[in-house]
Amino acid sequence: MAIEHNTSISTISKSRLEFLFDGIFAIAMTILVLELKVPELVDHHSIDELARELFHDIPTFASYLLSFMMLGIFWYRHNKQYHHFQVITRSMLVLHFIQLASAAFFPFCAALVGRYPANGLSLGIYVGCVLIYTSANLANWIIAKRMGALNELTEKVYLNIRTRLLRSVLVITVVLVLTVLSIFNK
Amino acid sequence: MAIEHNTSISTISKSRLEFLFDGIFAIAMTILVLELKVPELVDHHSIDELARELFHDIPTFASYLLSFMMLGIFWYRHNKQYHHFQVITRSMLVLHFIQLASAAFFPFCAALVGRYPANGLSLGIYVGCVLIYTSANLANWIIAKRMGALNELTEKVYLNIRTRLLRSVLVITVVLVLTVLSIFNK
Amino acid sequence: MAIEHNTSISTISKSRLEFLFDGIFAIAMTILVLELKVPELVDHHSIDELARELFHDIPTFASYLLSFMMLGIFWYRHNKQYHHFQVITRSMLVLHFIQLASAAFFPFCAALVGRYPANGLSLGIYVGCVLIYTSANLANWIIAKRMGALNELTEKVYLNIRTRLLRSVLVITVVLVLTVLSIFNK
Amino acid sequence: MAIEHNTSISTISKSRLEFLFDGIFAIAMTILVLELKVPELVDHHSIDELARELFHDIPTFASYLLSFMMLGIFWYRHNKQYHHFQVITRSMLVLHFIQLASAAFFPFCAALVGRYPANGLSLGIYVGCVLIYTSANLANWIIAKRMGALNELTEKVYLNIRTRLLRSVLVITVVLVLTVLSIFNK
Repeated sequence: MAIEHNTSISTISKSRLEFLFDGIFAIAMTILVLELKVPELVDHHSIDELARELFHDIPTFASYLLSFMMLGIFWYRHNKQYHHFQVITRSMLVLHFIQLASAAFFPFCAALVGRYPANGLSLGIYVGCVLIYTSANLANWIIAKRMGALNELTEKVYLNIRTRLLRSVLVITVVLVLTVLSIFNK
Repeated sequence: MAIEHNTSISTISKSRLEFLFDGIFAIAMTILVLELKVPELVDHHSIDELARELFHDIPTFASYLLSFMMLGIFWYRHNKQYHHFQVITRSMLVLHFIQLASAAFFPFCAALVGRYPANGLSLGIYVGCVLIYTSANLANWIIAKRMGALNELTEKVYLNIRTRLLRSVLVITVVLVLTVLSIFNK
Repeated sequence: MAIEHNTSISTISKSRLEFLFDGIFAIAMTILVLELKVPELVDHHSIDELARELFHDIPTFASYLLSFMMLGIFWYRHNKQYHHFQVITRSMLVLHFIQLASAAFFPFCAALVGRYPANGLSLGIYVGCVLIYTSANLANWIIAKRMGALNELTEKVYLNIRTRLLRSVLVITVVLVLTVLSIFNK
Repeated sequence: MAIEHNTSISTISKSRLEFLFDGIFAIAMTILVLELKVPELVDHHSIDELARELFHDIPTFASYLLSFMMLGIFWYRHNKQYHHFQVITRSMLVLHFIQLASAAFFPFCAALVGRYPANGLSLGIYVGCVLIYTSANLANWIIAKRMGALNELTEKVYLNIRTRLLRSVLVITVVLVLTVLSIFNK
């Protein structure tokens, strides 16, 4: 079941990986909404009751919006990086799959935080998922550079993007550590 | 986590945004149907009972059809506007994401109206979602013009589309105001 | 909210409609499976109990396979017709949306038949959905011909495809009539 | 309803089949996550309770990761084979649909194994689904060769890929036989 050795490194079609990437992002962004459940009302005509129930779900709505935005930012960043890749090597493919698995995992994280917004563990899982995505993204960028898979972008552009990714990874790590600490301080 | 500054404005691939747009629309249009639940029958062979249960769900079916049609019209309009965009600037991308977030939110709105068709609040939320989409669409069109992101379409075509969008926004706003008034008059 | 008048008939991008079509079909074919529910077992390790529960769900599995195959055939047929269309006119777009709405409705029909395979009404709804799809397909083909939207295919190819579609519509209508009669004979 | 005879074998668009394939894979990989349910907590703030509930779901998470990886490997393999196909014949299309139906069936298998990881039958169904996919893949490859549908790849490349697929089919068959034996030994 292991991935086959490939002699010609460029057999992975760049456009198909882009396609799979965009497809998974489109789906993850849309099924976020499946976690929003229509409340069960006693009185179907009662505006007050519906308002109360939906008000109660505000964390879920906020989590939906936040997660949609996060995935949008990830997608935008991928957009800005991907056209610099000339080929996709095997390790870059594996890192892409890690990015995709964590993006596809987002709807679950979003639902967890929406349901238990004040629970440190659900926050920790959400932030952990963001960290895995961003770290794989950073690794992808650095490995692509080392393997000579990037096109002739200037060193400055490379460093610029790397710095942003590094900063993101650091900030998210700090947030994760704080969340974990808050769990153990309880 | 902020979106990076980009010096070259055209790094956002027009075809990938189109792809994400079409993907999210295809998914939103298809998962509308997930809100239609197979009823639980006491007598599995009873045609009467199934008919009665499905008859009871007619608002949900109507809401499915209406929402499918709405998303279809949105998609058609985007189709007619998008090929006039020469580049996608950052603000246009943000407005596109607002359009996409409200389109992805449609299945929830459709389910809400299907479940509580006579509840003013569910109608208000539905109409509000349509308003957000259409306003973002209008803003996108005007900003694209101001930023010089449109191709050499005639002033007449530009104004034509802008007038239609403006009219839509106005009509939807009036509907929303009436819905809200009906809520408070209860 | 009405669809805008378009002066240049060809503003609807053929490739984007193809994209939306393929997207909706891919999703409808995949979410069919969401209707298959993992049964609840009393004894998690009991092979007998799981076998009994899954055996009980055989209609649902059969309905899944049948519906996947039907959608596959629809997709294949569209594939064979679509490259003959030179432009997509407004009426052809509307008919495409009717095809898409009934394709997206398939998961519900499949779930209904899987749950109540011996209920004439669920069969009737399923067959009715197939009939709507196929009729819209036939209408699309004939209208495209009349409007001069087909490329220079020979009259023989045109008639060939029209005959097949007509035959399908007739066969499905007969099945539907028989199903409806069986309902009223009960 | 039978698939029409086609005289010109190449009317099935390679790019559209690729599109449908990637679409179904993207969706199957993303809806795997829908099987992960947010647990119901008595105390919403209790980190211990959430941890215990999620710990209890570890088989489901493992099944999610495994299945995502399996689908990723299938997709990668298809990627490596597909660009060798010059045309898609009718039998190759049917085999593709068998591959797609089993890929789309994966979320159900993953949920079954995640829920009843120690139940031989759920393992058997999972492995059986993998076997169907891989066998159809092997058949596709061999038939493409026999029908002259492959481009001028060297005999060595052809045999290389065939050997890997054969080996996969054999290994999976052995696993399936062992699973079935373990069922009957219980």
